[in-house]
Amino acid sequence: MEPGDGATSSLVRQMGAVRALEQSLTSTSDTGVAERLAERLAGVDPLRQLDQADRCGIRFVVPGDPEWPPGLDQLDHVLAEESFGGTPPGLWVRGPMPLTEIATSVAVVGSRAASVYGVEMTRAICDHLALAGVPVVSGGALGIDFEAHDATLVSGGATAAILACGVDRVYPAANRRLLQHLAAEFAVVSEQPPGSAPTRPRFLARNRLIAAVTTGTVVVEAALRSGALNTAGWAEQMNRHVMCVPGPVTSYTSQGVNNFLREGRGTVVTRGAEVLELLGSAGEHLVDAPRGEERARDRLTPIERRVAEWVPVSEPAEVDSISRLCGLHIRTTEGALRRLESKGFVRLTDSGWRLAPDA
Amino acid sequence: MEPGDGATSSLVRQMGAVRALEQSLTSTSDTGVAERLAERLAGVDPLRQLDQADRCGIRFVVPGDPEWPPGLDQLDHVLAEESFGGTPPGLWVRGPMPLTEIATSVAVVGSRAASVYGVEMTRAICDHLALAGVPVVSGGALGIDFEAHDATLVSGGATAAILACGVDRVYPAANRRLLQHLAAEFAVVSEQPPGSAPTRPRFLARNRLIAAVTTGTVVVEAALRSGALNTAGWAEQMNRHVMCVPGPVTSYTSQGVNNFLREGRGTVVTRGAEVLELLGSAGEHLVDAPRGEERARDRLTPIERRVAEWVPVSEPAEVDSISRLCGLHIRTTEGALRRLESKGFVRLTDSGWRLAPDA
Repeated sequence: MEPGDGATSSLVRQMGAVRALEQSLTSTSDTGVAERLAERLAGVDPLRQLDQADRCGIRFVVPGDPEWPPGLDQLDHVLAEESFGGTPPGLWVRGPMPLTEIATSVAVVGSRAASVYGVEMTRAICDHLALAGVPVVSGGALGIDFEAHDATLVSGGATAAILACGVDRVYPAANRRLLQHLAAEFAVVSEQPPGSAPTRPRFLARNRLIAAVTTGTVVVEAALRSGALNTAGWAEQMNRHVMCVPGPVTSYTSQGVNNFLREGRGTVVTRGAEVLELLGSAGEHLVDAPRGEERARDRLTPIERRVAEWVPVSEPAEVDSISRLCGLHIRTTEGALRRLESKGFVRLTDSGWRLAPDA
Repeated sequence: MEPGDGATSSLVRQMGAVRALEQSLTSTSDTGVAERLAERLAGVDPLRQLDQADRCGIRFVVPGDPEWPPGLDQLDHVLAEESFGGTPPGLWVRGPMPLTEIATSVAVVGSRAASVYGVEMTRAICDHLALAGVPVVSGGALGIDFEAHDATLVSGGATAAILACGVDRVYPAANRRLLQHLAAEFAVVSEQPPGSAPTRPRFLARNRLIAAVTTGTVVVEAALRSGALNTAGWAEQMNRHVMCVPGPVTSYTSQGVNNFLREGRGTVVTRGAEVLELLGSAGEHLVDAPRGEERARDRLTPIERRVAEWVPVSEPAEVDSISRLCGLHIRTTEGALRRLESKGFVRLTDSGWRLAPDA
């Protein structure tokens, strides 16, 4: 019984946090939820906890506060997964960045065991988002999460980490410097009170918060059982954009992403500009469809192009044969062939015209 | 004016091949199509051509023949692209394999400039198709096409090449041995008469035939302006399955495939079994959704798993704290912790229980 589990969320949703607390401390219920909550609450001194937190520079943001991310309220309307779910009773926040700033943020998440490819893609996308002034939210983990936070910082962007443990703890220890920097300059967020240890259920519960407070989730790399796909699933349920970076079928850390796409879920993104386009309002941040490089052939006149198309690739052909094939008069055809020759597209050999080898 | 161009196809569709021929030779039309066709036909001696072809072991298959691939007739109901389109008047076939055998075939196509990744994926997919007895159709080109034919042959499967030039010609020259083998043991097919040179329009026209005679098209690798995507476009228009192998965003030869997927076109496939599943009748060739490897954790009892989930990842916790978190009686919790310890999942330290580093 704690923030993030479906039963507690449901109790709070039904009667409000204050009545849920009172009832847990004074009465019994059919489901036993109130009793189990009361057992947990017996060891808790909320005022002392708030006071201690305050002295560590940690604030507790609750629904109704101007800082409260409105996306979180939607969590009450989403089906709980494996008993996690619901709007959290509040968020513990450490760091000067107001949570209002993440209203336009994008989640960038992925495997802890990131490949070079995943690192490269994460950094390129976060660099683009940072330069466009879009904050990046991630989970503070090793691998893709770390790269997402770090690349955003390097490019001068804003980034917040939402953790599974208390915001006063450092997990994983290898990310100590990153997490301390975020706590000092940006924001580290958790629904679990200070002191809480990271446990598997808390990671799964945490994923829903990442999906809920952002406008969309980018999954860069994820193995088949990755927590990043769990975050993507929450984003999908909440009608947020789910964006997937495809990768080699042969790469362990892309198998989950490719499979997600195979199920017809998520949209392929290949660069930061495409993320902005998907998340922008209609008509904002439009990107040109990627095109192959322009070829010299594209600059020919329509007549020249038509003639060039009918010049054989391998064995040469005479003008009259080419003229018949392209359906143009023999003199028009010959004139075009001469111009194509001067541009290096075709060659006149002893047995007729053929395409130049590199045309 | 030749097989594969929309105007000729349309004339043949409107009045049948015989009347189209007669009319072209005897009368005039508003559009000039008949005249231009007559000009082309002036240099043709059909009976002599058929006779010559016959002596080279080349047969001419026309609509109504038992060998005629019925999928080709659908081409008359598909929008022509860049003036190519329509049902061909006939197919020139070289090789002993009856075209009826390609009724269940799959097209496997892609870039000429294939990467190691593309080669690997093509061979794995074609090997799977060959072992399942599904014939593979491709275009006889360098790169993915070559690998598709070759891997199918190596695995004992059947494969046919549909060419842009006459079936008596070898293009590209580097594929001479492959094309000669296909002509001797399987089938090489073209709508262009023997002797025809490969030209760009004929490649584009040819692509529609690959899409039309197969039950689906797999694009393994394709750059942004690849002919393989043109084939996929035809397959899409004809309601054939279009299957795409995603690849690294950073790979030139996967950009076209990834972009095709980004447009919401095609289905991701990552292995041959998934191709068979898509093409099979409902309930045939079903594949299990890919799953991550089973972990030792998956074999725990529900109670053990519940307790294990609440043991902190980093700093240790006492039994009573874990018991409170997981909502189980303290004795149940302790029993489970002992069993988890003997299985190597958790460790008892001086300050309580924590997860084993590799659990």
